[in-house]
Amino acid sequence: MSHFQDEDALVREIARGFPRVRADGLRLGIGDDAALWKAKPGFASILTSDWFLEGSHFLREKHPADSVGWKCLARAASDIAAMGGAPRIFLLNLALPAADTGKWLKSFLGGLRRAAGSLDCVLAGGDTTRSKRILISVTVIGEIAEGQEVTRSGAHPGDLLYVSGTLGEAEQGLRLLRKTRGKVNHKNEAVRKHLYPEPRVALGRWLAERKLAGVMMDVSDGLSSDLPRLCAASGVGAWVDPGNLPIPRGVAVESAQQLALHGGDDYELLFAVSPRKAREIPVKFHNLRLTQIGEITTKRGVQILRRDGSVELLRAAGWDPFREDK
Amino acid sequence: MSHFQDEDALVREIARGFPRVRADGLRLGIGDDAALWKAKPGFASILTSDWFLEGSHFLREKHPADSVGWKCLARAASDIAAMGGAPRIFLLNLALPAADTGKWLKSFLGGLRRAAGSLDCVLAGGDTTRSKRILISVTVIGEIAEGQEVTRSGAHPGDLLYVSGTLGEAEQGLRLLRKTRGKVNHKNEAVRKHLYPEPRVALGRWLAERKLAGVMMDVSDGLSSDLPRLCAASGVGAWVDPGNLPIPRGVAVESAQQLALHGGDDYELLFAVSPRKAREIPVKFHNLRLTQIGEITTKRGVQILRRDGSVELLRAAGWDPFREDK
Repeated sequence: MSHFQDEDALVREIARGFPRVRADGLRLGIGDDAALWKAKPGFASILTSDWFLEGSHFLREKHPADSVGWKCLARAASDIAAMGGAPRIFLLNLALPAADTGKWLKSFLGGLRRAAGSLDCVLAGGDTTRSKRILISVTVIGEIAEGQEVTRSGAHPGDLLYVSGTLGEAEQGLRLLRKTRGKVNHKNEAVRKHLYPEPRVALGRWLAERKLAGVMMDVSDGLSSDLPRLCAASGVGAWVDPGNLPIPRGVAVESAQQLALHGGDDYELLFAVSPRKAREIPVKFHNLRLTQIGEITTKRGVQILRRDGSVELLRAAGWDPFREDK
Repeated sequence: MSHFQDEDALVREIARGFPRVRADGLRLGIGDDAALWKAKPGFASILTSDWFLEGSHFLREKHPADSVGWKCLARAASDIAAMGGAPRIFLLNLALPAADTGKWLKSFLGGLRRAAGSLDCVLAGGDTTRSKRILISVTVIGEIAEGQEVTRSGAHPGDLLYVSGTLGEAEQGLRLLRKTRGKVNHKNEAVRKHLYPEPRVALGRWLAERKLAGVMMDVSDGLSSDLPRLCAASGVGAWVDPGNLPIPRGVAVESAQQLALHGGDDYELLFAVSPRKAREIPVKFHNLRLTQIGEITTKRGVQILRRDGSVELLRAAGWDPFREDK
C-alpha cells in the first residue's frame, strides 16, 4: 500500500518538509534535473557520499525513524568536518517500501530536518525509488577556504595525536540499544550519542582556520581501524597510550579501553598537532574535551604503549563489512 | 567468500582501475575523508545523484556487469547534459555481496571505466559496503558557465518542442533482452541503447552555449512522464503529434508510437526553442537526429494531437516505481 500516487508526489512530500531556504551558493535546488551550486569566491567545495542501509547501518526494530533521518546526514557531514569545512547542501537518495511512505517517512523526515537545521545544511536534490529494505545514500557538499583543508596525509613524526570527546561511547550505546526491549531510553548519554551523533564541525573549522592541525580525520569505524588509515596516508606510524584514552563512563576500565580502541560510530575528530603548536590546543573546545592520546612516529604501524612499558601492535578490530572474522 | 581481506582492499581495487587523472578542478580524490573540488572561475557546479539498484533498475541475469558499470554513470551524467553542462567528477557508492567482489566487480569496473573515459569524468570518491543485493548510488558533479544553465522552467507558449535521437528504442531493447535466453546480442541497436545509453552531453552544451534552448530536460522515465514535469515546472502545457515522433525501427507504427510515448531509459534531450531561433536547429547535430514533436501551449496538460484532428490527454504511463497500477 503506497501513501503516494506516484514518485512525484513522494518528492513533493519530501520537499514540503524542507523550506526552500536559499543556501548561500545554492542557485537551483529540488525539482530540476540537477542542483546548481557555486562556492564562495576563494572557497573550494568538499564532496562526500555515504551509505546508510537497513540491516547494515541501522536496524528497523532498534533505530527510531527519527534517528535514521538525523544520523544519515550527520555521519556524512562528519566527513566535511574532518577536512575542516562547513556543510552547505546535501542530496538525499532514498529507497523504501511503499508501506513506509506514511508514518515512518514522516518521522524520518523530522529527524533529517532537525539535523539539516542544526548543521545549516540545505536539501538540494536526490532520487527516490521503491525497495524492500530502506536504503539511503547521502551526498553532502561543504565549503572551505582554499588551502585551509586538512587532509589525512599531513602527519609528521613527533606530532602530538589528539581526539575530541569520548571514544567508545557510541558503541556502548549500541550495546545498550541491542539489549533493550521495548521503548528506547533516549536520555541515556551513550544511547543518544549512538542515535544522534553530532559532527564536530565547529572544532574542525577552528583547527583548520588557525592551521593548528596538520592532519585530521573523523573516527567512524573505530580508532583501531581509522588511525592506521591516517598513518598509511601520511607514511608514518603512531603510538597510543590506552591510559590516556577518553573512555566512556559506567564501564570497567579494561572494557572501556577496548570500547575506545575498537568501537565505531563516534564521529569524533582525530588530529595531530606539531609540538610547537600544541600549547594552543585547549583542554576543552567550548564543551568538548580534547585529549592527547599519543604521538606520530617514524616507525610504521600503530603501537599500544602501556604505562608498564609493554608494547603491542594495535590490530584493526573496528567495523568493517568485508572483514572475514566478523 | 570475500575476495578481499577488508573494505580498504576493496577500495584499493576500485581505485587501481582508475588512473589518478587529475581532472581540472579536482584538488583531492579517492583516499581521504572527502574530495576537494573547485569549478573553473566563472563556472558553477551541477550536482546530481541517482539510484541504480539490482531488481529495480537492472536484473542480474539480464544485464551484464559491464553494462551495469556503464549505465550507472551514464544515466546520472545525463542529468548534467540536461542542464547544458559537462560532467567532470563522480562519487561511487557501491554495496555488493562478498561473492561478487571477484569476477562481477572486475567486469562492472571495466564498464564504469569505459563510461568515465568516454564522458571525461573522473572517479573522486564514494563509499563501499556489503549487502545481499547489488546497490549503486552515483553522484556526478558537472560544470557550466554561470548563467548558461538550461532549466525545466523556461518554456513559453509558442515554443517549438524538440527531442534528440529516437524515443522508445531503449524500451524496445529491454523487451528484446527480457525475451532473450542465453547470450545477449549486443549488436542489436535497441539492445545496445538499453545497455549502453549515451548521454547527449555535446548536444546539451551546444544548445546551452548558443542559448538556443529555453527549457531542457532528459527523457529518462518516458515522454508521457517527463514532458508533464517540464510543463508543470514552466507553468505551461504542450501538444505532441505522435506522427512526428522519432520512433524505433522494426516495430509496427502503432506499437512504435506507444513505445516512443511511454518507453523509459532513452536519455535523449527534450527541449523547447522559440520560433525565432528554430531556424538554427539543424535536422542533425553531428549524427544525432533532432525532431520537432510538438509545441508549448498556454493551456495546461499535455495533449496528443492526431492528424485526423482528434485530441486526447496524454496519460503518464512511463516508469514510476510508486505508481499503483504497475
